Amino acid sequence: MGTKYAHNGKLVTFEGCEGVGKSTQIRLLEQKLGELGIDALFTREPGGTEVGERIRELLKDESLEMCAETELLLFEAARSENTRRVIIPALEAGKVVIVDRYVDSTTAYQSFGRGLDRGEVERLNDYATHGVRIDLTIFLDAPPFANTRRSASDRMELAGREFHDRVFAGYREIGAGRDRFAFIRTEEDKEKTAEAVLGALRSHGIIG
Amino acid sequence: MGTKYAHNGKLVTFEGCEGVGKSTQIRLLEQKLGELGIDALFTREPGGTEVGERIRELLKDESLEMCAETELLLFEAARSENTRRVIIPALEAGKVVIVDRYVDSTTAYQSFGRGLDRGEVERLNDYATHGVRIDLTIFLDAPPFANTRRSASDRMELAGREFHDRVFAGYREIGAGRDRFAFIRTEEDKEKTAEAVLGALRSHGIIG
Repeated sequence: MGTKYAHNGKLVTFEGCEGVGKSTQIRLLEQKLGELGIDALFTREPGGTEVGERIRELLKDESLEMCAETELLLFEAARSENTRRVIIPALEAGKVVIVDRYVDSTTAYQSFGRGLDRGEVERLNDYATHGVRIDLTIFLDAPPFANTRRSASDRMELAGREFHDRVFAGYREIGAGRDRFAFIRTEEDKEKTAEAVLGALRSHGIIG
Repeated sequence: MGTKYAHNGKLVTFEGCEGVGKSTQIRLLEQKLGELGIDALFTREPGGTEVGERIRELLKDESLEMCAETELLLFEAARSENTRRVIIPALEAGKVVIVDRYVDSTTAYQSFGRGLDRGEVERLNDYATHGVRIDLTIFLDAPPFANTRRSASDRMELAGREFHDRVFAGYREIGAGRDRFAFIRTEEDKEKTAEAVLGALRSHGIIG
């Protein structure tokens, strides 16, 4: 499980299927935390570091063939670097760290979606996170593409509707009964959803 | 440990420190197997596939900072793809497959060299090799840079002499008492070393 880090920061992960408004909600949260004067750091996976962004390019390149295990290992490589270089230093500086996709994405997409063994995926998740603990996971609980009209455009979105339905079911199974998971139903009104997200941060002691 | 593959092929890995003449010996083996009419496939790690070669670029890019765990995961991602797309199909076609560096490189460099936990490295090696079994490992048993005058030129070579000495000691520990390991002492005369390599392939039943 790696080393546990002692710090005053808080790690919040943002999860959800494609097309449920995750990017919008992260942008709204960034605004609101800014207004509240909270020292927050936003990062995304895969990415966050130079090597992570280079790995992201490989993962998004539709011309590159790769098997599910290779894809998993690339996600974990990007995560390892982002966690070590970005997330842990920010937590040690006492910040609220918001990550756009983290370990639950990998379990949902690579295990429930692509069919890789869940135990292996979770062991790799543990290895790549260097022992950091997630304080809160905001899960936008809406079916894939519920809140979007944009067309499929990358490897993930091309994988088809059944794949995304398995991912959605996977997320719900991963989060069921787990304290760190906040299931947030998305509302027609984005501001209402954003208020629910902020409420979850308050009720989980992330912000005052 | 993954699925075991039933096949008539033979998997031979080529291992050794930097600057011991590995590339030369692989080239000589390729010539000799060609002369013998053996249907052999040569591949290298990291690399062997398009995504593998792209990962190799990241690993060789000295301007890219990355921690040891990230480096490990990238090596394993390249291996996963090369094993699935190149090595396993060739073994299933009954070929002799010769890999320039494989799992023992990772254990020697990332665990003995960089200090990562050996159990974790070996578990990742198992994951990335999809259950294939190595029939013979040719280990060129010579100290780092014993047979070269070329100067340090990439990330690995820049890591310094002590690092390479740990790798050498690591290889010897990994191979000690293991049937699949052939310790080949390198000779002044490259052709003599090449004959010893060919002899190991014969004595291990790789070629007739």
